[in-house]
Amino acid sequence: MERLDRFAASLLVEWRVLKLPTTGAAVVVAVSGGADSTALLLALDELTKAEKLDLNLTVAHLNHRLRKGSHNDARFVSQLADALGYPAIIGRADVNKLANDDNLEQAARKARYAFLERTAKRTKATHILVAHTMDDQAETVLLRLVRGSASEGLSGMEAVRKISSSSRIEIVRPLLSWARRSDTEAYCKHRRVDFQVDPMNLDEQFARVKIRRQLLPLMQSFNNRIVETLSRTASLLREDSESLGGDAGKLLEQASRKSKEKGKTDYPALDVNVLAQAPPALRRRALRQWLSDGRGDLRRIERVHLLGVERLLEGSKGGRVAELPNGTRVRRIKGWLELIVKKG
Amino acid sequence: MERLDRFAASLLVEWRVLKLPTTGAAVVVAVSGGADSTALLLALDELTKAEKLDLNLTVAHLNHRLRKGSHNDARFVSQLADALGYPAIIGRADVNKLANDDNLEQAARKARYAFLERTAKRTKATHILVAHTMDDQAETVLLRLVRGSASEGLSGMEAVRKISSSSRIEIVRPLLSWARRSDTEAYCKHRRVDFQVDPMNLDEQFARVKIRRQLLPLMQSFNNRIVETLSRTASLLREDSESLGGDAGKLLEQASRKSKEKGKTDYPALDVNVLAQAPPALRRRALRQWLSDGRGDLRRIERVHLLGVERLLEGSKGGRVAELPNGTRVRRIKGWLELIVKKG
Repeated sequence: MERLDRFAASLLVEWRVLKLPTTGAAVVVAVSGGADSTALLLALDELTKAEKLDLNLTVAHLNHRLRKGSHNDARFVSQLADALGYPAIIGRADVNKLANDDNLEQAARKARYAFLERTAKRTKATHILVAHTMDDQAETVLLRLVRGSASEGLSGMEAVRKISSSSRIEIVRPLLSWARRSDTEAYCKHRRVDFQVDPMNLDEQFARVKIRRQLLPLMQSFNNRIVETLSRTASLLREDSESLGGDAGKLLEQASRKSKEKGKTDYPALDVNVLAQAPPALRRRALRQWLSDGRGDLRRIERVHLLGVERLLEGSKGGRVAELPNGTRVRRIKGWLELIVKKG
Repeated sequence: MERLDRFAASLLVEWRVLKLPTTGAAVVVAVSGGADSTALLLALDELTKAEKLDLNLTVAHLNHRLRKGSHNDARFVSQLADALGYPAIIGRADVNKLANDDNLEQAARKARYAFLERTAKRTKATHILVAHTMDDQAETVLLRLVRGSASEGLSGMEAVRKISSSSRIEIVRPLLSWARRSDTEAYCKHRRVDFQVDPMNLDEQFARVKIRRQLLPLMQSFNNRIVETLSRTASLLREDSESLGGDAGKLLEQASRKSKEKGKTDYPALDVNVLAQAPPALRRRALRQWLSDGRGDLRRIERVHLLGVERLLEGSKGGRVAELPNGTRVRRIKGWLELIVKKG
């Protein structure tokens, strides 16, 4: 047996760090045909043929039909899967039609993940592998930084997360913490596979391209390892967020306990005294969680709205109201915060 | 009485938010002669003359003697203080001589804060006012981002902090959370005072200038309010850090309790089981605090050293050692982490 290529060997190390199954599991690999996902597929293939992994692997590709030539990507992926000996499922979506509220990029992402989830269910897969690299992570961190995210957003993408809270299917990013884009390109070349040039950048995606082409290179002139640095910062901030999120959950539980016992309102009201004494970092997260649970989502809720709710906690007076988008209101009555959601 | 200028009125609002004394207190104002500190002095003067503040105010200026013309700054500050009717204390330091281990910029900052502290003691002042603006905060955040800081560093400068843990003198930055550099310049012009052009940028300071002239303008092309955005992100991350820091202190207390009772070593040893079960974000902070307490500082301790210490917590085996700079070692013996500091 030949020695593993360094790229495949690194993937195997990360595979073990993430405690992913090495044998028997069904997995879906999302392959766009670009260098990153092609390299991921090739490395999984190398590990399979070297008998390091024994997986039931399905290649998945969604044709977004957003531009001419997207069928070439689909054909490339399906031929590559065929040549390597894996089944490929090619989906189609007319993202232009789907994009309503969302911009094109969001619509494309939604369509892609919905397709991947369907494909995973159909193949009884437990893991969906996507090929985001450290460069994608650094870009995500900077994109969120310029848009005003704090630690949750700045922690970037997760290496492993459930596709939804009720599902047992996990999205896994086994390249995220170690692979550079230049590594995936070099590995494809080494394997003599011509990857497709990455799909045109859509719409709002423009900001990401500008980050890649302008902001990151400028930041690299301060720190030659800026991508690695941002990726590490993201993972430290993720640890912070997880710790704070857990504590905020406990705070929310504590602030709503009495109200739940009394069944005061449809949604549990929150005890003002409990919240007012909590550290601001936990209070802010607990209020976000409460609004999200009560309303179903945080759509259109901005920082200014949360500040309005936090201001209700000041002083000893009740009888005040904070107005939120879509007719949601938070009312302080005596020692309680009540959430009033406009019924659709 | 005339209406307050908007700049002075904003300073008064922040003064109340920070709960600073409005009457009777002795304060030192650090004035370099640049637009920011000149505007701060002028606004304090406006508030004093409008009888909003009644402070015992001393102007302090340190001549770093780093360049020709630095005596002009000193003369400008002393004449301005004189014209407004406040005493000025002008100090001198030969920063070039002081800079050994430190670079010039660090040496200058150390000399400046030491001078400000001496001046505060001499005048029995409780507060030292410095004129950092929101722009300085944004630059600090980005400087720390490119250097790899996580949430502690990315929270930037504090609006109020003790000059040292044992002192009751506070460093106050009353412009930090709201004033833009353009505001300070406009206010100086409005008051018809010619501020000095800011001192030449020293040495490593070069990175800060590049951030100001290149990185921030590029980021502004993504978000026109990038300075305000970064400043707000910093304050949210500060809240996170404070909450986590408090919990890490409790974790450290809990992990060292048994060892303190037994008087095991010079420095309390830490209970591996307690640390291993704690969330990574708290464990990391508790270990940093423990090393800092035991060694006196964290000089030359880098992320890689902390990772070495964290790895000692893995598995069940003792008898392993992590080497740190300056001969410090952390040893795992059975269920304990011991700190061994080389005696100077």
